[in-house]
Amino acid sequence: MKQALKTLSVPTRGKGLYELTKDVLAFLVGADPRQGLLTLYCRHTSCSLLVQENADPDVRRDLDAYFDRLVPEGMDFIIHTLEGPDDMPAHIRAALTQTSLSIPVTDGRAVLGTWQGIYLFEHRTRPHRREIVLHYIGD
Amino acid sequence: MKQALKTLSVPTRGKGLYELTKDVLAFLVGADPRQGLLTLYCRHTSCSLLVQENADPDVRRDLDAYFDRLVPEGMDFIIHTLEGPDDMPAHIRAALTQTSLSIPVTDGRAVLGTWQGIYLFEHRTRPHRREIVLHYIGD
Amino acid sequence: MKQALKTLSVPTRGKGLYELTKDVLAFLVGADPRQGLLTLYCRHTSCSLLVQENADPDVRRDLDAYFDRLVPEGMDFIIHTLEGPDDMPAHIRAALTQTSLSIPVTDGRAVLGTWQGIYLFEHRTRPHRREIVLHYIGD
Repeated sequence: MKQALKTLSVPTRGKGLYELTKDVLAFLVGADPRQGLLTLYCRHTSCSLLVQENADPDVRRDLDAYFDRLVPEGMDFIIHTLEGPDDMPAHIRAALTQTSLSIPVTDGRAVLGTWQGIYLFEHRTRPHRREIVLHYIGD
Repeated sequence: MKQALKTLSVPTRGKGLYELTKDVLAFLVGADPRQGLLTLYCRHTSCSLLVQENADPDVRRDLDAYFDRLVPEGMDFIIHTLEGPDDMPAHIRAALTQTSLSIPVTDGRAVLGTWQGIYLFEHRTRPHRREIVLHYIGD
Repeated sequence: MKQALKTLSVPTRGKGLYELTKDVLAFLVGADPRQGLLTLYCRHTSCSLLVQENADPDVRRDLDAYFDRLVPEGMDFIIHTLEGPDDMPAHIRAALTQTSLSIPVTDGRAVLGTWQGIYLFEHRTRPHRREIVLHYIGD
């Protein structure tokens, strides 16, 4: 059995989806896996992880637009507003999506579907530097 | 340490929950596990995974009804409509539920709760064939 | 390679977030890990798991308030009402959050972010005793 671990540092420039697929696959190549389990973990509570279609960029635009409506800024019952009007909606969006993702690996490759990309879903307006931990365990 | 991996091929006939529990437990029996970790991964972005109550079928009907209201077809701000009115809502429903699930295994059995079933949550209207990858690592 | 497994029994007293971070870290200390993967699994379908900010308690209050609005009691299309008006909303809230969480471990510590706490998100009104299974695999 072997393991590998790496922290990706991802700069973001406002709300939206940032693709991590290439970085994740490069990590896997470095781990030289056969069969095992890949895990991604997001070290923040105002951004999250998402597997989504990587073909049509309109899918990402529509996802953004939907979450802007599902969890809008300015909801009148929100108390936690000291860090800005986008902060509490960001925590809620993170709660509605994923903090961790696990993807099996076989024949040295993650079993991503044909149209699946791995994304960091940024929920804050200002630029941030985000840490995503990648972990592999297997043979 | 040992591992096992299998891809389930699940036919779906429209939106709703399709139970996978028996197939998942049969995979585990084949892996002959003692203690370890079971992971399920959905290779699609318009269906997802869900652990839900397997007692009263009304729970699944109500879940369906809720998601039809939370993410309805015909939202006027949606751009990605080329693949049909159910396609972008399907991506959004997938984002709001799970792409991967991890379940510990002990004494040879997944630690599912008494009323928990494992479901594929189909978000598209037409029939599809879906691939769910099962992975076990442990002893 | 080694593994460890423990079931936390968590008493809840109504809807809201109950912090598990200390119990989870104590489990890890007992497992004496170096590098590996920690998994949490919720054995119920009317409560769930969430990683959220552990600094300002208003974040938890606002999360509660949001979910009370996103999935209110008394939705008129709900059929599954025999177990009380909070039961079906509880299943829906569980579907919208997490049943399992996986967190890499390195240098003997879970890679939680500075402001991240691990919470049980209770969706039922009456007191319950909840079982969360903790599992570690690694070296």
